[in-house]
Amino acid sequence: MFSETVKEKLQEGDKRSIARAISIVESGNSESAEFLKKIYPDTGRAYRIGVTGPPGAGKSTITNQLTKYYRSLGKKVGIIAVDPTSPFTGGALLGDRVRMSEIGQDPGVFIRSMATRGSLGGLSKKAIDAADVLDSAGFDFIILETVGVGQSELDIANAADTTIVVLVPESGDAVQAMKAGLMEIADFFVLNKSDRPGSQQAISALKTILGLKAHDENTWMPTIIRAVAIENKGINEIAEEIEKHKDHLLKKNKFLKRREERTKVRIRNIVEEKIREELWSGTGEKSLNSSINKVVLGNLSPYHIAEEIISNYKNHDK
Amino acid sequence: MFSETVKEKLQEGDKRSIARAISIVESGNSESAEFLKKIYPDTGRAYRIGVTGPPGAGKSTITNQLTKYYRSLGKKVGIIAVDPTSPFTGGALLGDRVRMSEIGQDPGVFIRSMATRGSLGGLSKKAIDAADVLDSAGFDFIILETVGVGQSELDIANAADTTIVVLVPESGDAVQAMKAGLMEIADFFVLNKSDRPGSQQAISALKTILGLKAHDENTWMPTIIRAVAIENKGINEIAEEIEKHKDHLLKKNKFLKRREERTKVRIRNIVEEKIREELWSGTGEKSLNSSINKVVLGNLSPYHIAEEIISNYKNHDK
Repeated sequence: MFSETVKEKLQEGDKRSIARAISIVESGNSESAEFLKKIYPDTGRAYRIGVTGPPGAGKSTITNQLTKYYRSLGKKVGIIAVDPTSPFTGGALLGDRVRMSEIGQDPGVFIRSMATRGSLGGLSKKAIDAADVLDSAGFDFIILETVGVGQSELDIANAADTTIVVLVPESGDAVQAMKAGLMEIADFFVLNKSDRPGSQQAISALKTILGLKAHDENTWMPTIIRAVAIENKGINEIAEEIEKHKDHLLKKNKFLKRREERTKVRIRNIVEEKIREELWSGTGEKSLNSSINKVVLGNLSPYHIAEEIISNYKNHDK
Repeated sequence: MFSETVKEKLQEGDKRSIARAISIVESGNSESAEFLKKIYPDTGRAYRIGVTGPPGAGKSTITNQLTKYYRSLGKKVGIIAVDPTSPFTGGALLGDRVRMSEIGQDPGVFIRSMATRGSLGGLSKKAIDAADVLDSAGFDFIILETVGVGQSELDIANAADTTIVVLVPESGDAVQAMKAGLMEIADFFVLNKSDRPGSQQAISALKTILGLKAHDENTWMPTIIRAVAIENKGINEIAEEIEKHKDHLLKKNKFLKRREERTKVRIRNIVEEKIREELWSGTGEKSLNSSINKVVLGNLSPYHIAEEIISNYKNHDK
């Protein structure tokens, strides 16, 4: 079988096979689920780092520098970069070209970028599936990099052992506007471009917000690391903080607990995604189309049709 | 029955009953679905306007001014304001207090604000359900106002007959960062605070983006209206543009088509929401908890457990 061969080559670290395997899981078809089942026992060894934050904060620069740092220690690094921004700007592709020329040629680095071009459905699931591929291929670190604007991106960043939120001094408004989620998922913050004016105020503002968090001796308290990633300043400190956070998780017996929690979220997403797929490619879509007129004309309510679709799904789509 | 009485009072426009009815639909329990079925035949008469855009663009000022304008024509206006921003800022409540003192006392205006304080699940469904309540209570216009940062907010704004995206001259970066979705849902743009520097550049930039859209004689082309909402400038023009868009929909036979499309989206959401509820309050959650250890230890993959949960759901949760 095709995927069997791919699995073997994967473990040899063959880049073309890794790319192929990620394409299988991106397709999301039945082969994808079977393949992921097969490689799952080989996963769990990589340390996963989530990097998120508002657009323009310098997430990919930090990812790149951190990658170079880990490479200097001989570690292999896989990067999944998710960019759901506008098709008008084409952000993902542009950032990628820069990145590829810097670290893409290194045999110990694999970079895959995923963009949605409109629909966000299933993106977080696919990014996490792709991380499994890299994990089974023996990468020591997997960096999940996303633009933190929606739920889906938070889900991805949150699928990590350590999650870093990158801000810049000008992020004040963005932080205000940001969902509480972004604050809640940060294991620590990086204030990038911290040589710019306003950086001290940004740190004070952030500290005020962090100070509101309830904590005791078992709570990990997020710190704020200053960085100027483009000049490679603060990168060692980021790597050290990741190490510190990992130690904390291990010492307080939170490491497996955290993986358990994120695996639960993942399973819930897989279940819901699959049901959605079955529903709207099967009888559900048909009965929706055939009864929509009655609803628009006011004869039946959306709730009537919804109940009918659910009951049909349970009885027929087996 | 309680909801029967509420329905009658609703149609008399009694504010306390409207508030009560919205609380019923917000609860999302089984009474909610039954109530919504009952009032559905009385809906469909209100014209629904979506107002969205980045934080700080002045959406609520525009909503307020537009409301005063419609009131001056003797029309009744219902407002659903959805603010999913951080609990730290408490945006929804603050904006609400200002609003209430301005137009909240008017018997022809009803304002309900919905905030999530963390979780976004089901918010768009509830906002649209609440719009049904206002529709059945005889409001002529319903304004659905949301902060345009995530999918859920787009869903709400999109549940309208006419959707307005509000920007300010400083929104450049926000526009870049914004999902394509925000561009796609705009029936027209309002450049608010257009007396500020940079307003001409913002309009040029927006026009460039809009020019990329494919169109023929049947396509509605979004325009850009300049406004200074706080000085009541541009409000008449906004109301006129809404009227023009409505005429376009009616003349081109798109009006019912559009309602049909959005009702389909709504039904899909109701179905998925209900399945999610049934799944994770029933046997699904139990089997997830009992098998999570096997997954974390690598004995079973998340895909194995997901399939088990789906098959159990179909067979047992009837």
